[in-house]
Formats: sequence, C-alpha cells, structure tokens
Amino acid sequence: MPATTTGPGGTTGPDTSRARSWWGWGYVDAHPGDAECAALGALLPGTLSRPLPVPRVADLRIGPSGTTPPASLAHLVSDDPGARAAHAMGKAYRDVVRALRGRPGRIPDLVARPAGEQDVTDLLDWADGQGVAVIPFGGGSSVVGGVEYRGDARHTDRRAVLSLDMTSMDRVLEVDTVSRSARIQAGALGPALEAGLRPYGLTLRHFPQSFEFSTLGGWLATRAGGHYATVRTHIDDFVQSLSVVTPAGTSTSWRLPASGAGPSPDRLFLGSEGMLGVITEAWMRVQERPRYKTSASVAFTDFGAALDAVRTIAQSDLAPANCRLLDAGEAALSRASTDGSAVLLLGFESATAPVDDRLASALEMARAHGGTGGTPPNGGGEQAADGADGADAAVSDWRSAFLRMPYLRDGLARMGAVVETFETAATWDRVPALIDAVRTEVGAAALRATGHPATVNCRLTHVYPDGAAPYFTVAVAGRPGDEVAIWDDIKAAATDVLHRHRATVTHHHAVGRDHRPGYDRQRPDPFATALRAAKDALDPHHTLNPGVLLG
Amino acid sequence: MPATTTGPGGTTGPDTSRARSWWGWGYVDAHPGDAECAALGALLPGTLSRPLPVPRVADLRIGPSGTTPPASLAHLVSDDPGARAAHAMGKAYRDVVRALRGRPGRIPDLVARPAGEQDVTDLLDWADGQGVAVIPFGGGSSVVGGVEYRGDARHTDRRAVLSLDMTSMDRVLEVDTVSRSARIQAGALGPALEAGLRPYGLTLRHFPQSFEFSTLGGWLATRAGGHYATVRTHIDDFVQSLSVVTPAGTSTSWRLPASGAGPSPDRLFLGSEGMLGVITEAWMRVQERPRYKTSASVAFTDFGAALDAVRTIAQSDLAPANCRLLDAGEAALSRASTDGSAVLLLGFESATAPVDDRLASALEMARAHGGTGGTPPNGGGEQAADGADGADAAVSDWRSAFLRMPYLRDGLARMGAVVETFETAATWDRVPALIDAVRTEVGAAALRATGHPATVNCRLTHVYPDGAAPYFTVAVAGRPGDEVAIWDDIKAAATDVLHRHRATVTHHHAVGRDHRPGYDRQRPDPFATALRAAKDALDPHHTLNPGVLLG
Repeated sequence: MPATTTGPGGTTGPDTSRARSWWGWGYVDAHPGDAECAALGALLPGTLSRPLPVPRVADLRIGPSGTTPPASLAHLVSDDPGARAAHAMGKAYRDVVRALRGRPGRIPDLVARPAGEQDVTDLLDWADGQGVAVIPFGGGSSVVGGVEYRGDARHTDRRAVLSLDMTSMDRVLEVDTVSRSARIQAGALGPALEAGLRPYGLTLRHFPQSFEFSTLGGWLATRAGGHYATVRTHIDDFVQSLSVVTPAGTSTSWRLPASGAGPSPDRLFLGSEGMLGVITEAWMRVQERPRYKTSASVAFTDFGAALDAVRTIAQSDLAPANCRLLDAGEAALSRASTDGSAVLLLGFESATAPVDDRLASALEMARAHGGTGGTPPNGGGEQAADGADGADAAVSDWRSAFLRMPYLRDGLARMGAVVETFETAATWDRVPALIDAVRTEVGAAALRATGHPATVNCRLTHVYPDGAAPYFTVAVAGRPGDEVAIWDDIKAAATDVLHRHRATVTHHHAVGRDHRPGYDRQRPDPFATALRAAKDALDPHHTLNPGVLLG
Repeated sequence: MPATTTGPGGTTGPDTSRARSWWGWGYVDAHPGDAECAALGALLPGTLSRPLPVPRVADLRIGPSGTTPPASLAHLVSDDPGARAAHAMGKAYRDVVRALRGRPGRIPDLVARPAGEQDVTDLLDWADGQGVAVIPFGGGSSVVGGVEYRGDARHTDRRAVLSLDMTSMDRVLEVDTVSRSARIQAGALGPALEAGLRPYGLTLRHFPQSFEFSTLGGWLATRAGGHYATVRTHIDDFVQSLSVVTPAGTSTSWRLPASGAGPSPDRLFLGSEGMLGVITEAWMRVQERPRYKTSASVAFTDFGAALDAVRTIAQSDLAPANCRLLDAGEAALSRASTDGSAVLLLGFESATAPVDDRLASALEMARAHGGTGGTPPNGGGEQAADGADGADAAVSDWRSAFLRMPYLRDGLARMGAVVETFETAATWDRVPALIDAVRTEVGAAALRATGHPATVNCRLTHVYPDGAAPYFTVAVAGRPGDEVAIWDDIKAAATDVLHRHRATVTHHHAVGRDHRPGYDRQRPDPFATALRAAKDALDPHHTLNPGVLLG
C-alpha cells in the first residue's frame, strides 16, 4: 500500500504512519484539541464548559478472550486489548459517546485478520462450529451499529464474538482495461483502491465522506452512497460480480455487464450487511478519470423554491455529478453562505467532452426558480484538472467542511452535546412536508429530552427524477451521563417521522442495529419471510453478524 | 382501453378489433400469407416447397378441464378450448412449431382473468389449497417457455393447471406528475400503458420488440430489456415499488426513489418469473416525452473495428438511446445495407436539450474506427418530433424490419425452417471471441443436425461501458417433423458456447424452462440455496409457475 494517494478533491491518505483513533473518527492527529472543542461547544447553549477527557483503552475493563482459536488459525487472530477495543463499535455518535463515558459496547473476544479468501473460509468454519459470532469489519466507520454485537434472539447465553477485520485483504488484484473493470479485495480502503487503479488512468470514483476510513467490502455490504448526486448514486451500480463466503459455501457470480437470468444474485448480497456472507472481493466497473470539471453555487432565499429548482434539474437529463442543496443552517456551518441563504452546489464532470453547456443549462433552471449568483469559476472557463478542480469557492469551502464534519461531531460530543445525523429518501411529492416535519418534530423531541433548543439542519445529498435524499443533522446540549438515552429519544422521534412520511429509514448508511425498529416496519412482510429463509439456509447457526436486519 | 395509440416509432396498437393469433406471433391479419412464406423459404436452401397449413384449435384434442373452481370464483374462470389453447404456450419458435405440428404443450385446465388484486389473492388461495399449479400470464409473448407447464419435481402425478391471465388488470391507476411516477396494473399491455400516460405528457418509454403483445407485469417478472441501448437498459431501473401477491401474503414495497435499507425487496421479485409471487401493480418512474431526437447510421467493412467503435461510444458519457450494431447478415436482412457492410445505428433523444452535438461526437468516434457515412438526416437538423422521428433511412428501415421479424420467423417455421434467436451479454474482453464462437460452433451444430447450411446473424442490442449484449439469429432448413429435436440440439450448442465463454444465458429474454440447463450452471450455488429457501417460504406448495428457475 503506497504511503499517500489522492482522495476526493485532493485529500491525502491513508498515511499508515498516522495513528487511527480507537474511539473517534479518523486520525488521532486530526481530532480537534481542547480549545477547538470549547469553541464548538460555545455554539450550542447548555453544553459543558470544558471538554470530556479523551478516553483511554487502559481505563476500560477488558477481560480475557472467551475463546481460543485452533493453532492453525492462531497466526490470523489477536486478543490484544487495544485491537479488541478498536473493533468493539463503529463510529456513530452513540458509539463515540459510549467510549467517552467509559461504557463501550461488547468488546469482541478476538480480532482476526484474514490474508485471503481461504482464511475467511477457515475462520468462518471454525467459528460456525464453535457457536462464535462473526462480525465482518471493514474500516469500522459504521454509523448505525453495524459492527457491534448486541446479542441475538437465538443465543441468550453469553456468546464469544470474533471481529473479522478484512483490511489485510486490500489489493487491486486485476485490471481489465478493455472492459474497464477491476478485481479488488473487499478490505481495500478508498485511497488504496484508488492508488491501485491510478496507474491505469482509471478510478472507481466512489467518494463517500468516509472514503479514507471505509472499505470496498463495507460499501458493498451497506449499499453505500458515493460520489454521484444523480443517476448512479450507490455502489450497487458499479458491481460487475461478487465473491461472498457463506457458511453454506462460496458464491461467485459471473462477470457480466448486465443479465436477465433470474433475480440478481449480487443484489441479494448487496445490502446484506454481513448477515448472509462475507464479501471477499468484487469485480467493479471503473472509469476513465474525468478530464473536464466545472462547478458553481447558487443562492436561494426561499428553500421551497430551491427544492423546485433541484427537482427541475433532477428531472432533466443534465446529470450533474454534484447537486447538493444546503439549507441556511448547513450553508452557514460550511461557510457556503453568510447571509442566511440556502445554497445549491452544482458540479459537472466528464472524461469525454466539456461540460460548461450542461452547467449553464442547470444554472438557467436554478435562476428560473429565483436562484442568484452561479457564475462559474474562472469566468466560466473549464478545468482539465484531475484532482482539486479549482472549483467555485463555496463548493471548495463546503468540501473541506464536509470532510471535517465527523471530527467536529466528536469535538461536540466531548463538550456534552448530543449529535444525530440521519439520511433518508422520499418521492418529490413528499419531500417538502417531510423536511418540515423533521425540523419541527425532531427538534421538539430534542428539546423535550434535554430542555435545550436543538439545531436541525438539512441538505440534499443525492437527487433523482422521482425524489430526493435529505440528510439531517441534529445537535443539542445533552445532560451529562444521559447522552445515550437522549440520543435514543431523538432517534426514535426521527424514525417515527420517517415512517409516517413513508421515507426510507436509510438512503445510504445501512440499517445496522440502530435502524432495526424503522426497518422492521418498512420492510414488506413477505420479503422478511424470504430473507429469513435465505439466512436460515446460508447461515443456519446465525454465526454472521447476528442482530443485523433479522433476529 | 382506447382503440389505438402510438407505440414505438409510431406503431399503432392495440386494436382490439384485430384478432390475436393463438399459435403464432401477434395479429392474425399481419401473418405472412402463403406466397410470402414461400418467398421466405426460398432464402434458405432445403426448406419445404409449400407452407405448412395454419393450425386450428378444432384440430387439437383438448379434454375437459381437470378441475372446477368454486362458485365464488366461477365468473373469473373459463374452460373454453380456444382460450385454453391460446394459453398453452408462449411464442418461442419451439412453441410455434409444436402448434404447427399439432403437438402443443400441456393445455391448461382453466384460464382465469382476475379483475383486481383481491381476485388474484382469492384465485391463488383456492389453487394453493387444491394443488392446482398457477402460471401467471401477461401478453403470452415468452420466447423461453416461461408460461407453459412441463411438470415439476414435487408433483409427479397429473396436476391441474390454471393460467392466470392478468390482462384484465390493465389500467394506469394514478399519475404523480410532481414525482414523475405512475401506478400501473401489471396486466397493461404496452400501448394501453402509454395511452394512460400520454394525457400527462409522460411516457414509460419501454419499447421491447413485443411492445404491443407484452405487459408491464411480464416485463417486471422477466427483467425485460427496453428502449435504451445504454445506461438504463432494463425495466428494473424504472421500478419505484411493487405489489406482489404470494401464497404467504402480499408484499408491497414503499414508493422510494432509492434506498439503502437492506437488500432491495423489489430486486428479489424482479426476474422471479412468477415463481415467488404474482406482480399485480407497480409504481413506475415515467418521463417527459422527448422533444429532441436525431439518428444516423455508419457502415463498417470490418466488424472487429465496428466493435471497437461501439465500445468507445459505450465508454464515453454520450449515452445514446440507440446504439445497435448489425453484422453484415443482419444489415442485409433489414435492408440497412446492401453492400455487405456491418451497420451501426445511432440515436439520441432528450426532453431537455438538443442532441446533435452528442450525435456528432459519436459519429466522430465511429469514423475514427473506420466507419463511413453517418450524415444525420435533414442535413444535420433536429426533429422536435414525438412519434416517428424522420430518422435516417437505414434506421427507419431497420425499425420496420425489427417489428416484422417475429412474423417472418413464423412464416419460416411454416416452410419447415428451424429458427432460434437468443441473446446474451459478456464483458468486452470476451465479446469478439464469443461472437466468433457462436457463428462457428452453433452454425456447425445446425449443419450437423440438419445437413443444411445455417444462417447465423448477430447484432448488439444494448451496450455498456464494461460489455455488450449480442443477439443471435440462427435459421436453417429442418427435417419435417423433427423440428423440435433439431431446435433442442441447436439450443444445447448455443447454451454450451455461452457457458464456456461465461456469457449470460439471457440478457433480457428470461430463463423460463428453455434456459434452465444454462441457468442452473451459471447461478452461484449459495444463491440457488437462498432462492430455493425463499421459494419454500413464500410458496411452500410450489403452486406458482413450477419448473421455472427451480424445481
């Protein structure tokens, strides 16, 4: 793995010399210091006057592992307390605050790092025979409780837990430049994957916020949302074939550009969140790196008019790569606006042809709905840039803020704030009322739970001809020690609003354990029946990620 | 249902005053007459000197129905021999020739025509309780044995069979113009569906060759390929939600533009070919009708260079709506060329903006690979047309020939020819060798089986950045009475070539019963395990379309 490569918009990573945080987002050296935490806290009335201390593994009571692997697997497995603590939870606010309060989730007994598919098979065989739960673990960036054991219906006794860390399987194994495809191991983090493709002039171009800290396998198992705001928004669309190890055998689909042979095998495993099998590698559709990029931002005083503008653009065939609408609060936080406007960030890119006409058409649509501004950077000229695109200033500011947000969330957590982020999707006819209801009802729930006024911000991350994906951030001062209960109240209110508006419980963060109540109500019963039958057939002992999606 | 509306490129239909053929394609009055059949036969050495007679229902021995529905369902059910004969098979060559030879497949005992979802539930409940097999039937245009009972592993005794004809459920129930979506009953044939959308200026724009004679539910159950040559090629991409009646209850997914909540429920039912449930209605993503269209054709003397040209276009972001490469044989048959050239048909369309720049870019790419011609019609001008687009002459000729092809196939069948059409998809690295192997090996198999030289033609129907979907037509003079055995030999050879080249057994015609041998070898075993478990859970008595995909 090379020391550095270029991530989204020129971010560098992964630098293996930089220590990853066991309890919070990303790199330790990128965490806000105490002074920055205090400044963040000052933005939210009622927070602490000084930050909670950074938690230490040494302060956790980590017992000995409850199980021992056979000698043949010992070289793949560790019971090191630091490794076990770092694999106990994902990186949701709920996870971070539990670490801060010294009450992390169940610490796994073992952490295994398979070096290849046979290792995965061997580890799974052993665990399945021993009743050990296996939780596939990629970058560990889950924000929905996807990588944490919380018990399961079939095992009421204490069950040993193995965290299956896939990140040693991180190579680009083959590149087919004719078919623009690459065979990539599931444990590759975003930067390693892109570094493997770069020598061929190719890119997967999947840049979630977690790009540096999440893996291909994690993206596939959770149907992650990526770079594109329109058309091909999810990783699903870039899958050519999958290899998945299940207790009932390994499933390898053929490399096909498309097929109509029965229900798609890959689509059953995409979104299965490690409960049907362990994705070990995939052939992915990759692309030529874009040569033409341009971007612009448009301000709106009326958020409803901005929604109409975005809908018009989404229903055209302009297909912007970025079409992100920030409400006034989001825009102010990311410095995309300073005057209380909502801001629409638009970006176009292509490896084929200049894109300035498409931007001009989109800007015309935005202005027809009252948008102002929107002069492309450099007087309308284009960048033939490969990394940072010399974009519109609001776009650049927003991108920097975007990548910094999870670190700031952890800073707010240290100041005693409760922060919940959630995303959804709904058809356009429901979107305006949905956003209003979330602002009103989730804000009220946060106030009820804390006595403090909450900030509720919204942005649209992905848009479709038939609807949009709103992303919400709720922040409120908590009560020391009660943060998890308060978060649970806020989450329940959010889940309830989404359900009543028939908005999906998740657009691209997955279900995990935190979204089970909403997911169970949303999922059609016969599909639950089919999924349960598939689970029982492929994983009869419920070894794999028990409690996710089912059980 | 209106008497006429506009189908693909201005075709009129359905005219309910026109009689549908019980044994052959489409309308009786469109069948080639004896003289045209003879002229077709003259193209293939060794065919009969005069056509086989048109078969008559009266000549079939159709026994009484082996089952009687309860009085409460009697109004939905018919045992009329004509109706039963017309529901005995689909419209594959294999079906047509069996009818011509007076040996049709199993005649169903009853034909039911539910008027609504509750009727479907009631009929299914009754059949499930009685051990009656239920075969969902849309337009009956299956070319893979998808609507015919051929026995099943669980029922070795003679089982009564009910054909569930969905075409009385043919309405557009709701249109949401804000979210560009429509709720449509599964039994709507293409023209009725488009007629229901037209008053809103909207279209589903799914125009398979069978458009007049196939239904939305059939398209969904078989993952049909549609209008677009690139990007959104299958009906799957236009599904917002599905309602599916299963013996274990009705599954109704939420209307969502996108979701990441577990494996997609809709994707399990898409392609399930009626073996998991009966699709009763769907919310579909519809579009503004295109305002801008243009098309052109390019000739190639070198088919390999033409493949490279198509690959270059498919890997750009030009996204042609039509990008159909005809080899020399296909081009000659459809009068798209007269000099032995291969021909690439290109079409662009948009409701947003003119498309002539996109066509010009694609033509430039084609010429860079040795393509000639390609002047857009009307001196490069655009049509703001809605129906027929005043297209390039080769494109128009090809479209007329395309819609006529299934009728001509039946004419050839009457002349004793054996005709097999099949489609597949493979990644670009495999496409040239695959096409060569099909020409050589399937042609040799046809010669071996008949002693006559076969014609093997190829076109690409849909293209992707990572691969293409070739469609093959094999025609050869048969031996009177042995046509089915000869077809089976040719099919086995085709299936074998596809398997060795890891090309899918079907890109958009579905698996049915004819593709089971190839499908069973292609499908990953753990997925088969999961699908079988889902089947057993949703349809424990294997009432629904037994023998399709499983069993």
